[in-house]
Amino acid sequence: MERITGRKNSICVHAKNLGKDSSYRKAKGEFLCDGRKLLDEAVKNNAPITAVFTTEDLKAALPENTPVYLIDQSIMDSISPLKSPQNVLFTCKLPPLKTFEYRTGTHILLDNIQDPGNVGTIIRCADAFGINSVIFFGSTADAYNPKAVRASMGAIFRQRIGFVSIGELEQISVRIIGTSGDNGYLPVYKADLKDAIIVMGNEGQGISEDLKRLCGETICIPITPGCESLNVAVAASIIMYEAKKGIVHDI
Amino acid sequence: MERITGRKNSICVHAKNLGKDSSYRKAKGEFLCDGRKLLDEAVKNNAPITAVFTTEDLKAALPENTPVYLIDQSIMDSISPLKSPQNVLFTCKLPPLKTFEYRTGTHILLDNIQDPGNVGTIIRCADAFGINSVIFFGSTADAYNPKAVRASMGAIFRQRIGFVSIGELEQISVRIIGTSGDNGYLPVYKADLKDAIIVMGNEGQGISEDLKRLCGETICIPITPGCESLNVAVAASIIMYEAKKGIVHDI
Repeated sequence: MERITGRKNSICVHAKNLGKDSSYRKAKGEFLCDGRKLLDEAVKNNAPITAVFTTEDLKAALPENTPVYLIDQSIMDSISPLKSPQNVLFTCKLPPLKTFEYRTGTHILLDNIQDPGNVGTIIRCADAFGINSVIFFGSTADAYNPKAVRASMGAIFRQRIGFVSIGELEQISVRIIGTSGDNGYLPVYKADLKDAIIVMGNEGQGISEDLKRLCGETICIPITPGCESLNVAVAASIIMYEAKKGIVHDI
Repeated sequence: MERITGRKNSICVHAKNLGKDSSYRKAKGEFLCDGRKLLDEAVKNNAPITAVFTTEDLKAALPENTPVYLIDQSIMDSISPLKSPQNVLFTCKLPPLKTFEYRTGTHILLDNIQDPGNVGTIIRCADAFGINSVIFFGSTADAYNPKAVRASMGAIFRQRIGFVSIGELEQISVRIIGTSGDNGYLPVYKADLKDAIIVMGNEGQGISEDLKRLCGETICIPITPGCESLNVAVAASIIMYEAKKGIVHDI
């Protein structure tokens, strides 16, 4: 364990930038995670940890030769993206960004979802409900934003994710199902969600016009008329829950 | 519209304290809401607005005699609980805190839920799924915390909420259903959720021992074995969605 005493140390500045800047993450091929819970998940899932920062003696079964840096609370406060940082932070190698490849099963496509917390929650639920892949489209928030990583509760180390363009989607012969916050579409519990891509639209604007053209049918989650529509992460979770019910009826 | 120029103005300090402090809210009988969306919801639902703060000319059909204060961005930054404040804030009278009264229908009980965002999301979904009441138990986060109010997206102005003690619960003759993050309990889609109180446990600890004793049966949302359990707001939403399906099969 090496002690670092200055917050301008280049390793600390590097970690801080990984937390703040998506293009920096892509350029360097690493991302930042916070907290002991995520560290345990990373170890359990054999994630390629590149460095660990801790404010106290760390009892963790890390892979051999993992660099561990002991830092003061003030340096932790400076690196951490959290207002009240935990006492462990670490960096991981970014997995290669993969283009979406269609396989059987249910896939959930994020169409310009803006909030990293929503993205992380959807990844967590996709993992819990056995969704084949979470597909990133348009300007959807980065899955490796620290808020998304935290909301995923470690599912980011397991869940298959992929990227897709409108041109690629047009080439794939698979059912694409739209979703709407308005009642009056096919209720989700009557839809066949197997072997399909389900599109979740942007928090404010809904599904983009380009994608709407590709949707064969549109489903909804019936709610009390006149109410505010559901949060996109909640809506996606209910749909994935129904998809799992379709796959396995009893566990 | 009156202009306020000093952030130490007593009306501004009052509004700021309403955002920060739950006991201050209770003592003064008011709460703080931010953003135009919530203001429109408050007006639509005839919420008793006590003051509005705005950084620009406000085109809103407010009730007659509502005090409107024009403030600078720096004062808005000081009052607002948000890092990037919107340009409208307002205060509302707290409704009287009601003890839970059992009526037919489905009720959702929050057992020491700590995160105000989770509380607000649950209130939003309860409203959307026609849940009779959201019941606050133990040290559950304040429904009138600005984060909870924001996450409720205006449902806070409509949804019935109530408070209950363990003694009161022991007196009520109604089915109380526990929930678990572990598989192996009755799957939610096989449970009768009508005319019952469904208990959602604390984010880390689950359902408290006192309440467990009162639960006649326990349900679960089946997930892939070995995965992290669902976020409590997501789990509550799926359960409320199933409860609504039980009430109205087609809309």
